[in-house]
Amino acid sequence: MAQSAATATTVAAVVPTAGTTAALHPIGATDVRLTGGFWAERARINREATIPAGFEQLQAAGTLQNFRLAAQSARDGYRALGIMFDKPFPFLDSDVYKWLEGAGWELGRAPDKRIQTMADEAIGLVEAAQRPDGYLNTFVQVLTPGNEYRDLQWGHELYCIGHLVQAAVAWHRALGDDRLLLVAERACASIERELGPGGREGIDGHPEIEMALVELFRVTGERRWLELATSFIDRRGRGWLGDGRFGRGYWQDHLPVREAPAAVGHAVRQMYLDSGAVDVAVETGDDALLDAVHRRWRDMVATKTYLTGALGSRHKDEAFGDPFELPPDRAYAETCAAIASTMLAWRLLLATGDPACADLIERTVYNAVLPSLSTAGTAFFYVNPLQRRTHRTWTAPGEGERAPWYACACCPPNLMRLIGSWHQMLATETAGGGVLVQQYASAEVAAVDMRLALTTDYPWDGSVRVEILAAPDGERDLAFRVPGWCSSAALRDESSGTETGRPDGAAIVATRQWRTGDAFELRLDIAPRVTRPDPRVDAVRGCVALERGPLVYAIESADLPPGVELEDVEIPDGAAPRDAAGPANAPSIVGLTVDATAAGTPIELAAIPYFAWANRGVGAMRVWIPRAGS
Amino acid sequence: MAQSAATATTVAAVVPTAGTTAALHPIGATDVRLTGGFWAERARINREATIPAGFEQLQAAGTLQNFRLAAQSARDGYRALGIMFDKPFPFLDSDVYKWLEGAGWELGRAPDKRIQTMADEAIGLVEAAQRPDGYLNTFVQVLTPGNEYRDLQWGHELYCIGHLVQAAVAWHRALGDDRLLLVAERACASIERELGPGGREGIDGHPEIEMALVELFRVTGERRWLELATSFIDRRGRGWLGDGRFGRGYWQDHLPVREAPAAVGHAVRQMYLDSGAVDVAVETGDDALLDAVHRRWRDMVATKTYLTGALGSRHKDEAFGDPFELPPDRAYAETCAAIASTMLAWRLLLATGDPACADLIERTVYNAVLPSLSTAGTAFFYVNPLQRRTHRTWTAPGEGERAPWYACACCPPNLMRLIGSWHQMLATETAGGGVLVQQYASAEVAAVDMRLALTTDYPWDGSVRVEILAAPDGERDLAFRVPGWCSSAALRDESSGTETGRPDGAAIVATRQWRTGDAFELRLDIAPRVTRPDPRVDAVRGCVALERGPLVYAIESADLPPGVELEDVEIPDGAAPRDAAGPANAPSIVGLTVDATAAGTPIELAAIPYFAWANRGVGAMRVWIPRAGS
Repeated sequence: MAQSAATATTVAAVVPTAGTTAALHPIGATDVRLTGGFWAERARINREATIPAGFEQLQAAGTLQNFRLAAQSARDGYRALGIMFDKPFPFLDSDVYKWLEGAGWELGRAPDKRIQTMADEAIGLVEAAQRPDGYLNTFVQVLTPGNEYRDLQWGHELYCIGHLVQAAVAWHRALGDDRLLLVAERACASIERELGPGGREGIDGHPEIEMALVELFRVTGERRWLELATSFIDRRGRGWLGDGRFGRGYWQDHLPVREAPAAVGHAVRQMYLDSGAVDVAVETGDDALLDAVHRRWRDMVATKTYLTGALGSRHKDEAFGDPFELPPDRAYAETCAAIASTMLAWRLLLATGDPACADLIERTVYNAVLPSLSTAGTAFFYVNPLQRRTHRTWTAPGEGERAPWYACACCPPNLMRLIGSWHQMLATETAGGGVLVQQYASAEVAAVDMRLALTTDYPWDGSVRVEILAAPDGERDLAFRVPGWCSSAALRDESSGTETGRPDGAAIVATRQWRTGDAFELRLDIAPRVTRPDPRVDAVRGCVALERGPLVYAIESADLPPGVELEDVEIPDGAAPRDAAGPANAPSIVGLTVDATAAGTPIELAAIPYFAWANRGVGAMRVWIPRAGS
Repeated sequence: MAQSAATATTVAAVVPTAGTTAALHPIGATDVRLTGGFWAERARINREATIPAGFEQLQAAGTLQNFRLAAQSARDGYRALGIMFDKPFPFLDSDVYKWLEGAGWELGRAPDKRIQTMADEAIGLVEAAQRPDGYLNTFVQVLTPGNEYRDLQWGHELYCIGHLVQAAVAWHRALGDDRLLLVAERACASIERELGPGGREGIDGHPEIEMALVELFRVTGERRWLELATSFIDRRGRGWLGDGRFGRGYWQDHLPVREAPAAVGHAVRQMYLDSGAVDVAVETGDDALLDAVHRRWRDMVATKTYLTGALGSRHKDEAFGDPFELPPDRAYAETCAAIASTMLAWRLLLATGDPACADLIERTVYNAVLPSLSTAGTAFFYVNPLQRRTHRTWTAPGEGERAPWYACACCPPNLMRLIGSWHQMLATETAGGGVLVQQYASAEVAAVDMRLALTTDYPWDGSVRVEILAAPDGERDLAFRVPGWCSSAALRDESSGTETGRPDGAAIVATRQWRTGDAFELRLDIAPRVTRPDPRVDAVRGCVALERGPLVYAIESADLPPGVELEDVEIPDGAAPRDAAGPANAPSIVGLTVDATAAGTPIELAAIPYFAWANRGVGAMRVWIPRAGS
């Protein structure tokens, strides 16, 4: 029989306890090694550019300085670029913690002296800032001492500690370094004293602590953390937080977590809350809770998710809109919401095995997370619209360009930890002891008791070569997810030429006694396609989008013939996109071209992957393109 | 020859000084008497229901109480329903002033004991609250004494005094009651000491004071007020206010008023600013300034105005979007922005004679101002979307219904003053000494040296009977605006049967020696029509709207056959709307009916005027309806 499934020693962000109700088990980060291609390049940029630049920004913005002030009990000089309700943002500590989590995953991949030095400085500041009683929040310690846990609606204290815990778990699992874990345990004990058994009935306005506490339980084996997480899930939806500025739905306090039928309010909050709910459900065997989240998630995917996977159409409260309220121009589509959606989908995939979760992860990462990052890896979009018009009313300098940092800098370090841990989602173990490849990249994967090599130019090419590097004794399932967008897929044995098709379902499954050296080619039909929107999405009526494989494409003014404006372009029904060269500044990219018209005149219209937009100056862009005659 | 044009004794909100560059002159409120029909009914509701209910709300919300606190220099108990930046709203005084302006116009129309008693109480509170040095702002006096004129960005001190001045001018002109005028003059002198000659170079974050000061100059003849208004116009756009929360464009401080090419930022602020700029331009003969505003206004009408006349598509900052960013579902379309747009268009009409201004007033008042008011006149919409879906995610009780009041209650009293003074915009004197009827209602009008009676069932019927009640000596022009939506119009002499057509331009002009008893029928073709959107408005691509005369129509779920959802409905190309009975709860309304399909099945689709929507419970509604096959 196969080895036991993932254990507490698995190096990953989400590690369900052995024997829980999880359907799939994660493969540790150390068991996946990116060997080249698209994702190895993203990892390289994250390590060489994004994470180091992030640290410099944390220094420049004063976010690290705030920990120094807290350590010295200094009263003056708290630094923040942003203001909320006449005070500096209260949630900036979390930027440091998310950065540390990203750094931890990267250092676990391979040592890096520069990042290590930066991280050591940050960890030292975090350790020094914590009060003897375990309390840790630089905003309260420096600016509003005595206000500990008094502003649960907006204070973000538990939210920040949740991110601290996740960083601590990363450093523990990836590096065996428990400096942060000791800080995190003391901080959680402080929360427990205030809001745990015998304490007040509070919850945090911004969910996050829930999933962190479950992972802290998984790392330490201390059931108290799971119970505290469960109580936060159970308490929510009883109106404790009040209406706030945007109504109870904003922070998902309008209905109990088990009852709320739809994703509402602040998108990141909903995704973090539901991530924690899945974690609690898996560890406590609470199928009703898991079903409630899964049902809500399916409704969200069907009615409140952009083609890109992005979530949250409303700027005012960073919130989901009504079903099918998905404007492309005013899409809020916050980078953090896409990352949080990936975190939830990953948990749901592990818990339920629902292949739609892996589909959403793929769609979201390529088309809603990666677009936030510049080619060089040091500038970020916070908001990711699907359309920018030629004629705009600019009222502030720098509008429309990726920025090196933000006053509210939640997105950049969130991106660092997502890219730093993306490979953890590449494959899973199945309950039956097999391996299921969920995402495609050139990588060596050790799972169960076999090792395989994947070699591919994905997402540019739909062919993946699979070689068995080390075969186990006995039969094993080796399965490959067939993405929802893929209409034709097959696995061909390189030596015999026999093909394994996809009888049904969302995966190709080959079951046999493997031999070292067995080699196959997986072929996913990646031909460009024209996508029509759901007719209920009013904002893109009469339009089509171009897709190819997992990628959503966009047209940019930089590619238009002289004199043609983006708003003049229409695509006739029946036009078929073809592969083309990518833009001059990114030759590795596969572009598309399609016959179109501009104010009635035929043109050859070029499209590039949406994630690559806005790297050639500030221009116009659109994903949804009007059909001729609409 | 005709009498001189409007003078300082004209009873109206806007009275350009005789001899200025104004093209048209207003007719005083006392020279227009609504005699029946649509607008007399609106005026009745305003007097009998809306204004009295408003006073009760000002009492209940604590807005009047705040003046009592300021009078007693009390420190505690400042009352406000809303919070901004952790403090109560600082602009609530203006609600009282706008209510007083509305009450003043209504009392000028005819005495009313109840309103008079309410107004006397309010005026007494305002008088008592003013400090001996003239300073008046209850927020600063009660909550932040010592902070006078320190928070020009957000404090709204000048904004509030602007509304006080406008109320004072109304009471002076309509009633000869100068109690408020004395308060207003002292308050403006306080502002002048701080920000006038020799003072600081400040401007208010929310324009409003500018147009108020010009009217104060017109009432008092004191040039200092015109000069102060001019300096506020001249100072704006130099970045003095900083970026704030939403960028410099939010408060129109990004470019000088003479240079800014487009309406941007907070819509009400832009409209109030440009209203003040027109007033300054007219009084100082500054044609360049007038041209700049007129040019910006034309751009706004062409690219940033909803079919309903509403302005401001963005919720986050209550702001204009980019050109053609006009989503129907997420239209912010604030009631105050529509009212402010009417105020600007009226000033531009007087200044330039541009008939498009009267067209926009008509479109806006019927379709963007009136929709905010419930049939009973005591509940209000703040936000006026053009679409509400069947399936929504409600997260707060009461969402989607008109409310009796708001924490930020700027819109209800603004509506009271607009309806209380609407008849001031019914007709103008022309520079040539004639009369130009701008809007249609049953009314007696005394203008220049003639009196006429208009009798009509407008907007339900396109016929207007015109009778000369008192004829002047000599020839006079009698002109009738032909609305931009009207494709056919004629004026028929009742006795001779001869018709005066519209040779060109936007008005029918009859010039003759009039006789008492002369009677005519003006016929405006009001047949229902199908309107296609500008193709650049992406959000309504593939849709049509139904209009009839000046009215935009909407379809509501209340009128659909059982089992049909609003989102299933499509209108085939070529379908022609027909007149129909109005809804059961409003028999005086003319409805429409049109052949349509619901999920492919033919249905007869009923439509009602958009202004009447949401009076039959919370349902779905849309103005823009998909075309079949789009």
